[in-house]
Amino acid sequence: MKASKTKKSRKTASKLGKAGLSQKSGLPPGSLIHIGEKKTHQISIDMILYNSEVVEEKKDITLQEALEKSYDGFNRWIKITGLHDTELIGTIGNMLNLDNLLLEDILNTGQRPKVEFGNDHVFFTFRTLFQEAAGTDINSDQISLVLKDKLLVTFHESELSLFDALDERIKFPDGRIRLNNPDYLFYAVIDIVVDQYFKVIENLGDAIDKLEEQLFELPDHEVLDLIQQNRRDLLYVKKSVFPVREAINSLMKFENSLINGLNIKYFNDVYDHVLQMVEIIETYRELNAGIRDIFLSTQSNRMNKVMQLLTIIATIFIPLTFIVGIYGMNFEYLPELHWKYGYPLVWLVMLAVVLAMLFMFRKRKWL
Amino acid sequence: MKASKTKKSRKTASKLGKAGLSQKSGLPPGSLIHIGEKKTHQISIDMILYNSEVVEEKKDITLQEALEKSYDGFNRWIKITGLHDTELIGTIGNMLNLDNLLLEDILNTGQRPKVEFGNDHVFFTFRTLFQEAAGTDINSDQISLVLKDKLLVTFHESELSLFDALDERIKFPDGRIRLNNPDYLFYAVIDIVVDQYFKVIENLGDAIDKLEEQLFELPDHEVLDLIQQNRRDLLYVKKSVFPVREAINSLMKFENSLINGLNIKYFNDVYDHVLQMVEIIETYRELNAGIRDIFLSTQSNRMNKVMQLLTIIATIFIPLTFIVGIYGMNFEYLPELHWKYGYPLVWLVMLAVVLAMLFMFRKRKWL
Amino acid sequence: MKASKTKKSRKTASKLGKAGLSQKSGLPPGSLIHIGEKKTHQISIDMILYNSEVVEEKKDITLQEALEKSYDGFNRWIKITGLHDTELIGTIGNMLNLDNLLLEDILNTGQRPKVEFGNDHVFFTFRTLFQEAAGTDINSDQISLVLKDKLLVTFHESELSLFDALDERIKFPDGRIRLNNPDYLFYAVIDIVVDQYFKVIENLGDAIDKLEEQLFELPDHEVLDLIQQNRRDLLYVKKSVFPVREAINSLMKFENSLINGLNIKYFNDVYDHVLQMVEIIETYRELNAGIRDIFLSTQSNRMNKVMQLLTIIATIFIPLTFIVGIYGMNFEYLPELHWKYGYPLVWLVMLAVVLAMLFMFRKRKWL
Amino acid sequence: MKASKTKKSRKTASKLGKAGLSQKSGLPPGSLIHIGEKKTHQISIDMILYNSEVVEEKKDITLQEALEKSYDGFNRWIKITGLHDTELIGTIGNMLNLDNLLLEDILNTGQRPKVEFGNDHVFFTFRTLFQEAAGTDINSDQISLVLKDKLLVTFHESELSLFDALDERIKFPDGRIRLNNPDYLFYAVIDIVVDQYFKVIENLGDAIDKLEEQLFELPDHEVLDLIQQNRRDLLYVKKSVFPVREAINSLMKFENSLINGLNIKYFNDVYDHVLQMVEIIETYRELNAGIRDIFLSTQSNRMNKVMQLLTIIATIFIPLTFIVGIYGMNFEYLPELHWKYGYPLVWLVMLAVVLAMLFMFRKRKWL
Amino acid sequence: MKASKTKKSRKTASKLGKAGLSQKSGLPPGSLIHIGEKKTHQISIDMILYNSEVVEEKKDITLQEALEKSYDGFNRWIKITGLHDTELIGTIGNMLNLDNLLLEDILNTGQRPKVEFGNDHVFFTFRTLFQEAAGTDINSDQISLVLKDKLLVTFHESELSLFDALDERIKFPDGRIRLNNPDYLFYAVIDIVVDQYFKVIENLGDAIDKLEEQLFELPDHEVLDLIQQNRRDLLYVKKSVFPVREAINSLMKFENSLINGLNIKYFNDVYDHVLQMVEIIETYRELNAGIRDIFLSTQSNRMNKVMQLLTIIATIFIPLTFIVGIYGMNFEYLPELHWKYGYPLVWLVMLAVVLAMLFMFRKRKWL
Repeated sequence: MKASKTKKSRKTASKLGKAGLSQKSGLPPGSLIHIGEKKTHQISIDMILYNSEVVEEKKDITLQEALEKSYDGFNRWIKITGLHDTELIGTIGNMLNLDNLLLEDILNTGQRPKVEFGNDHVFFTFRTLFQEAAGTDINSDQISLVLKDKLLVTFHESELSLFDALDERIKFPDGRIRLNNPDYLFYAVIDIVVDQYFKVIENLGDAIDKLEEQLFELPDHEVLDLIQQNRRDLLYVKKSVFPVREAINSLMKFENSLINGLNIKYFNDVYDHVLQMVEIIETYRELNAGIRDIFLSTQSNRMNKVMQLLTIIATIFIPLTFIVGIYGMNFEYLPELHWKYGYPLVWLVMLAVVLAMLFMFRKRKWL
Repeated sequence: MKASKTKKSRKTASKLGKAGLSQKSGLPPGSLIHIGEKKTHQISIDMILYNSEVVEEKKDITLQEALEKSYDGFNRWIKITGLHDTELIGTIGNMLNLDNLLLEDILNTGQRPKVEFGNDHVFFTFRTLFQEAAGTDINSDQISLVLKDKLLVTFHESELSLFDALDERIKFPDGRIRLNNPDYLFYAVIDIVVDQYFKVIENLGDAIDKLEEQLFELPDHEVLDLIQQNRRDLLYVKKSVFPVREAINSLMKFENSLINGLNIKYFNDVYDHVLQMVEIIETYRELNAGIRDIFLSTQSNRMNKVMQLLTIIATIFIPLTFIVGIYGMNFEYLPELHWKYGYPLVWLVMLAVVLAMLFMFRKRKWL
Repeated sequence: MKASKTKKSRKTASKLGKAGLSQKSGLPPGSLIHIGEKKTHQISIDMILYNSEVVEEKKDITLQEALEKSYDGFNRWIKITGLHDTELIGTIGNMLNLDNLLLEDILNTGQRPKVEFGNDHVFFTFRTLFQEAAGTDINSDQISLVLKDKLLVTFHESELSLFDALDERIKFPDGRIRLNNPDYLFYAVIDIVVDQYFKVIENLGDAIDKLEEQLFELPDHEVLDLIQQNRRDLLYVKKSVFPVREAINSLMKFENSLINGLNIKYFNDVYDHVLQMVEIIETYRELNAGIRDIFLSTQSNRMNKVMQLLTIIATIFIPLTFIVGIYGMNFEYLPELHWKYGYPLVWLVMLAVVLAMLFMFRKRKWL
Repeated sequence: MKASKTKKSRKTASKLGKAGLSQKSGLPPGSLIHIGEKKTHQISIDMILYNSEVVEEKKDITLQEALEKSYDGFNRWIKITGLHDTELIGTIGNMLNLDNLLLEDILNTGQRPKVEFGNDHVFFTFRTLFQEAAGTDINSDQISLVLKDKLLVTFHESELSLFDALDERIKFPDGRIRLNNPDYLFYAVIDIVVDQYFKVIENLGDAIDKLEEQLFELPDHEVLDLIQQNRRDLLYVKKSVFPVREAINSLMKFENSLINGLNIKYFNDVYDHVLQMVEIIETYRELNAGIRDIFLSTQSNRMNKVMQLLTIIATIFIPLTFIVGIYGMNFEYLPELHWKYGYPLVWLVMLAVVLAMLFMFRKRKWL
Repeated sequence: MKASKTKKSRKTASKLGKAGLSQKSGLPPGSLIHIGEKKTHQISIDMILYNSEVVEEKKDITLQEALEKSYDGFNRWIKITGLHDTELIGTIGNMLNLDNLLLEDILNTGQRPKVEFGNDHVFFTFRTLFQEAAGTDINSDQISLVLKDKLLVTFHESELSLFDALDERIKFPDGRIRLNNPDYLFYAVIDIVVDQYFKVIENLGDAIDKLEEQLFELPDHEVLDLIQQNRRDLLYVKKSVFPVREAINSLMKFENSLINGLNIKYFNDVYDHVLQMVEIIETYRELNAGIRDIFLSTQSNRMNKVMQLLTIIATIFIPLTFIVGIYGMNFEYLPELHWKYGYPLVWLVMLAVVLAMLFMFRKRKWL
């Protein structure tokens, strides 16, 4: 666990900056290159045909089956998993009549969340966020959606378990997905991904709470590490969530024949959620900064205590040591050495010194 | 009291982030799930019927009595206390012809304050803030208002004592509530909740004043604790108050048949109050940050003092100890030991050293 | 003086937040309650009647005389001093046909500066700022102006000496006040109050200059105190001045039959002044923060010096003390003790140690 | 030099806040009072008459000669140097038909840079910035320009050498100044003043570079002083330059018969320069803040080093001193003292202690 | 390498502020002066003629060949390398009918990125960024583009290897460059330069990652140096990239006969990239600031450790040394010295002291 954390922190800047974009320098625009890791072995194409009466799910079909055949009277949802076969993606793009620049955005998995409106399609790209468990790495996949008449195509790097819930809902006879055109499904995909952000944000909230709770128990370097980790995680989530706000806002405002005006309220609902997340993230960032402040104050405070102790001890004993040093001198003519009560007198003097010191410390509230 | 404070701080992030929202992931939008604690045992429905002549209050009535019967010539205020019975809320929603997304907002008690305009209703949701006493936990309930023609419905998690004042005012024969449509009552509810924020903000102001007053008397860790607590409380209040500004602004700007143009001035008045609160909160945040700065400077200052004392003591006594150490050596041939005035001479030398040191310290203004 | 400073700082938050507003919770809007201290014993009403030919000043008149009688051909300026008699203010409001919400703003002396336009009046409320002397408490009174046709009414908590200058100018035969309608007088009142802000801001500038000058001479805690005091004073002035900018801007932009278009340039002039103040205040806040930075650096620097001295002394003398300690041991078989030149040799060794240390310190530039 | 620096810092706030404005409190608006130092002995009036064919320069002429005589077929540039004779300025204002508020702005040398459009004139006021040499005080004069038909009047506090270049260019037969109306000259004056800002900004850049270079060589207090001085200088320049951006922007946007539409591009060019300066100033402020951060870290780092040395010395020698102290005790029955190898054994023990310590220090990377 | 770094940091402010601009003070606007280093020996002019069928490349041609001859049916790309021959640039400007102010912008290599629209041309100026290797100086050249009908002229200070890729693409028969007017080439140049920014930004990301990785291994002063270097580099890149956003936005919004509406989507794509860079740069700045925070905390933490060790050692041994000092006194009447078990008793006392101390330290968790 410790090791994984360390690994985690090592590539923050690259992770946040999506290294790899520079590979494209010098290539003509619209050159299809997959930027990102190869996450699945093969591209798989699944399709769900549905209308208000029937649902049919087809797994691992061919491109031809998915795009060339006509399915009158049906809405289609085509799920394309895996983005590394750029040629295939290029073919899909041609079949769907999509611009190469748009395909480039699909393939470049470091894309900034955004929406784009074409003549006969709406394009939406953003990221999922998921964590296996609180405290582990936050991972994310890019999802791109292309909404056309009677057709929704989704592109993602890897199998997404969060689509299972949608698969279930689509099978539900009188569900809203079934009764609506794919614009509602389009919304439903965005909604389900955005809702999932809450889970990650909640984990970060828990991490901050836990850190605050253990602030005085954990060793310093670990606290420091956790503060910086929270900070990085919040930056990462912020970077994924903030532009979504803008994109959904455009979706709501841009009049569009593909999206039913009556469904705008659903997008408004997602928009509200994203707004709420944006505020929570900013609040968490402030809380985390507050924890850092306390931590630094605590360090400084502890140093103060250490120095006070040292000063108390030194201030009491250094003079005493000097006094006993005097009578350790070997002068022939050192009269006090021969006094009968010299030794007890020295003790009395030292006692007086100690009491004076203690009195001074008490006055300064150090004791 | 100490313990409660500690408890308080433990769940700040969760409190601010409204944990629980992620429970809804994967559910279709408009799924009615109550997010929040179950604060009352049973949902209770109260109703006040009023017009300029008559007022009638009915406690604990049934849903049918409240919503199905027609009450011509009367304005109705229906108060629904308790939100955990999602089925009942769903029924109310259907009876009032409200969208499920709106009901979802009512049930999700971590909702961001906002206003929404429907065809035949205005929906407003925000939070109350209250504190049993200064320094204790700030609590908050969500209140949602649905304004329809001749009807105001309010939803809240728990019994709200601040409505008692309204109950009184409504009974007052020629009060403005009685002479107006429910839009004025709608305003009156918002106004009474917003006015209550001042109490909490005042408490925070007192807490900051008290902290500043006791800055040099309290132990360090407690000061640190109080600074962070103020910070968190201000964040919490800010998060509840700031979006209200926006919501009321929309209320004022959006032309609406349900709200009488002549009553806009009242909303303007609330708006002014919220604006004032926003400024006060920002000012308090700055003051609190200022206190933290002083606190840190003071720590550093104290350390300086500690180190100066140590240095003075050490710088004076370490050389002296060295000198007496010399004449504690047992060399056979150590002539000074046999001088008659060796001992007094050593004292003279030491006195000179001390005076030189004191002179140096005085020159550096340490003494 | 010291004591008064301390008192000053104690209620900053309350002062800035205008405690007292929460008293109104639960009351219907427009309930007239005076929030603020009772600053004068009795409400006094003065009136100045003027036109281009004649000026007449009437002191301590009755309400009837001021408002009921008609004064054709005259412009009237009615000064109402004292706000604690809410009933009287209510009567005035009725006579002038003012809304209760507006009267509430007049009575609530913690009101945010603002302008409001009615059908037949313009309402402006803001604050005076004054200081008896530099370094003393900044005090402020709320002034509210109601401009109607041929009539200006001003409300203030206490006798304002800064109106004397206006009284003089109004008596000046061909002055612009005399030649214009009350809109010019309205401007003149705002102008004279705003100009007075410069005095307070200048004092703050002087305080900052003086603090910077004495930074290295004053004791630390006093510097810290002064920095925080400047900060609070700047916050206080900022809070009074910044909203005035907005209010005057509205005044200029809002077309209005009561304000002569030709007089807009005067408001523009005041606007320029307020803009300048806003910039100066922000600059002073930065300067004050800069002084705090230097102060902290200086503290840290001084600590460095202290530690260096301690280290130099300790590093030189601790080894020497160890050396003389060796020959203070009482071993029977300690040959050096019996060497003839043991004692001078020890001195030589110690000298070498000291020189080596001094060399090292010089290399590190500590000496 | 040291002394002048010190002087420099003493009145920063007053300099930035333009003390003196409060002198006007209570005076009617448009009261002509010269606020600023009296920089020249006497007001001097120079005039340049020019058209595309002829140029004529007249020095130290009378007001009547400058303004009353008519100069058909000529463009006039009237330079008025010295602002302390308010009566004369008043007369000029009357002759040019200028509003008193505008004259007030000319005389008040702490005026914020701005532009104002009259019926038959454009008024522009801003500041020159100049430095005798890098590192010396930044001085500034206020320049006000009044552009009328065929006439440009400039007002400045003192003789400006930067106008010499313009005098030369005006004499150049086919120069653009000669071929254009005074609006081009108006631009040329603004341009020449703005270009001069670069010199001052460059000096500040050099000062920052130099400071960074010498960061580790200069004594601490001097570094601190220089950082604060840069900060103040940047604030001062910012305050003069930033509002110019706004003013020139207004100049470009406001349609105006006095400024030829074809010359807008020149103003655009100045605007670009000011924009660039604004960015450079902000960058310099960040760089300066960065230097302060390094400086503070370095201080802290040095302290660390000092403490480490002290700790190494103390940790090695304090135990040794204790050991030799043991055998300096005079107990009758202290057997080790009588061992034959007691003394060398003690040395061995001490050697072991030292080695153990050194090993520990090396493990902690202190050595 | 060390030396080069040092050199690097020395002129940051000048580099960021583009020293040299002040050379122009006093010159008439549009005076052509080359501000910047002379980077090539001679100005060279290359030309590429292309249409959908033919491509022809001409190297090192004369000005006449490039601009006077007419090339009907061809699109021309003229590359002008070297900007120090102001006369030649002036001639080019005349031939292309460009304003002198525009030529000034081309020559002044410290120009802020911007776009300008003329009657028959679009002017775009911005900077390339390149680094020989990660960690070395970031260099940059200014590129200016002038787009006219059928003609693109690019001006750059030195030979740019990044144009080679474009030269290749232009030769590709059915490439989009060949099929479009020069507006696409105009886009392609901007795109290729902007894409190159990613490389530099990636290097900065790597530098930040590497710094974080080595934070605890590198010596303090080096860490500090690297943090400040990253900060400066990010400032430098920010300064080059941020204004490009604005410029490209203007390009997209300004309707223009020279840029084909269908090609706007390409500019939109570049715009997205710049937006992404802006976000990455801001994120990197935060990460770098975070590293500084950790670094400072670590320093402070280490100091704490050092002080604790010193305090432990001193607190244990100083009292012991005092105890043995007591029995080193030479009083005649010091009874303990004559006790038989005096010496072992002293050891017991000392042992007790040590144990008590260790117990206290353990209680404070220092051990």
